[in-house]
Amino acid sequence: MSRTIIRYAEGGTPRWGVQFGSHIAPLDVDAASTGELLSGHWDLLWSVEPAQAVVPFERVALLSPVTQHQQFICQGVNYRSHIGESGLRVEDFPFNTIFTKAPSCITAADAPVARPAHVQLLDYEIELGLVLRRPVPAGTQVGGDDLPQWLAGVTIVNDLSARDVQLPQGQFYKGKSYRGFGPVGPALVLLTAQEWARWPELHMRLAVNGQTRQDAYCADMIHGPAATLTELAALQDLHPGDLIATGTPAGCAARAPGKLAMFILKHLMSDAAKWRMFIRKGRSNPAYLRPGDRISASIRTDDGAIDLGEQSTSITAP
Amino acid sequence: MSRTIIRYAEGGTPRWGVQFGSHIAPLDVDAASTGELLSGHWDLLWSVEPAQAVVPFERVALLSPVTQHQQFICQGVNYRSHIGESGLRVEDFPFNTIFTKAPSCITAADAPVARPAHVQLLDYEIELGLVLRRPVPAGTQVGGDDLPQWLAGVTIVNDLSARDVQLPQGQFYKGKSYRGFGPVGPALVLLTAQEWARWPELHMRLAVNGQTRQDAYCADMIHGPAATLTELAALQDLHPGDLIATGTPAGCAARAPGKLAMFILKHLMSDAAKWRMFIRKGRSNPAYLRPGDRISASIRTDDGAIDLGEQSTSITAP
Repeated sequence: MSRTIIRYAEGGTPRWGVQFGSHIAPLDVDAASTGELLSGHWDLLWSVEPAQAVVPFERVALLSPVTQHQQFICQGVNYRSHIGESGLRVEDFPFNTIFTKAPSCITAADAPVARPAHVQLLDYEIELGLVLRRPVPAGTQVGGDDLPQWLAGVTIVNDLSARDVQLPQGQFYKGKSYRGFGPVGPALVLLTAQEWARWPELHMRLAVNGQTRQDAYCADMIHGPAATLTELAALQDLHPGDLIATGTPAGCAARAPGKLAMFILKHLMSDAAKWRMFIRKGRSNPAYLRPGDRISASIRTDDGAIDLGEQSTSITAP
Repeated sequence: MSRTIIRYAEGGTPRWGVQFGSHIAPLDVDAASTGELLSGHWDLLWSVEPAQAVVPFERVALLSPVTQHQQFICQGVNYRSHIGESGLRVEDFPFNTIFTKAPSCITAADAPVARPAHVQLLDYEIELGLVLRRPVPAGTQVGGDDLPQWLAGVTIVNDLSARDVQLPQGQFYKGKSYRGFGPVGPALVLLTAQEWARWPELHMRLAVNGQTRQDAYCADMIHGPAATLTELAALQDLHPGDLIATGTPAGCAARAPGKLAMFILKHLMSDAAKWRMFIRKGRSNPAYLRPGDRISASIRTDDGAIDLGEQSTSITAP
């Protein structure tokens, strides 16, 4: 059965623990990063007993279970439903889109997030996060049954995005990297080999102020974890504790303009004018996030056997 | 006067040293990363005496002076001359384009670099690399005179790029992150306050097989170091030893097609077809790098007072 790893602050000091129901079993380990925890204390994580869970979950100050010392690698346009609503065509993406977020954007699953003063089109993206267990050597071919060898567990990621920075500027890094733009957690859920086989059944749901916006299964992913790990291993080093966010399904605030508008945008307007119009129209779209909005996000199998918990993120003024 | 910091391997162990002329003064420090060296040993770096330089530079196995534990942040389209040759318009970039390379692509200034088997359009990009001295707090306004406070020094970066991955896939990260795609060094050159004021005079030159391809001054940069640090500090955390590559001037192998071709590409062809044509045409462009090619790259002021040394990179088969 899965293990629910929690990072929290106790009197200002970061601690690691294993959650059982409503309580946490504190771990007596000194690991500054998620990578150190997973590399140095793997067996301990699985051997903790429910009887050791003495700290009420409600009482702790939650931290992200992925520390800011890790790589934060992201897949883009990885769900057909999101490609369509973005006005794009699946056949124009015969590849796995990869970019990064600055690790300093990682924040706790219940931390308020400030909308930067110059950002007007703030959007949400619920994503399944994969956390590396060990380095994946160059050239490794990762098969679907190999996930437990390379991956430690899963977590919820909200890939918050300033569309008015991300899209006009072309490269996604800046518009997705502001401090707070990466709520991760509440838990890092370590899976057994049998549970890894069920990743397509993970059900993502995101609501804003109680209204459902995103509701989809990870099965709809185009480039799954095994193919992505194989490609990344051929590209770069991956370290224990690194985070891969696997893309978001339909339901974001950002929508493609209609077909006639798209034609005009593509053929008759310069890029700068096109994006000014995109931003002007976006300002009247009530789906974008505003100070005072509250996002809730959960990922679990419908039978509840694998449950990544729930995020609750308030958007605040800068 | 500037200090030339070298990282090299001695019997398999990485060492730090200060170069004086043809010899290196070894440092007795235990710093696993560039950040640890700069944070923990700043005064030592400036106090080493030429008489301590006893190791011949020619004899050491060079390593990159920026270790793979650091962030590798890049500016794109930051020279008008490169924007023009790419078929782009300066007015469509009223912002500072930021992306990242995977830190595992960092390699030594004389290391051979393998062209991956599937890459056909391998390109070079000489860039001035800025290395952080200390964290830059959120909201810091960095003025032109403040560079010595935040930056430790400069180095040569070759931002090697697989154009047939980078451009069709839109996001630059993957096509620029393959292992070996980031030759850095040979040295990290620490500058005095007076020398920092001379960064626009730094003269970049890159040649392939002895033929000059890039030849420009850093003065032509659009978004200079102070403005870039100010913007990055508002976005994300920056740590000592982190590397910012400031963009490349004209002279790359990749060229924009002619004006009629551009119109056809933009208006009449789908994206996937457009990129297939780009790659097919690129295969007959002899300026792209092939196994056996040798790149040399240098950056220095014309009076030689600030000299970042010279890279020599051989391209090999995979």
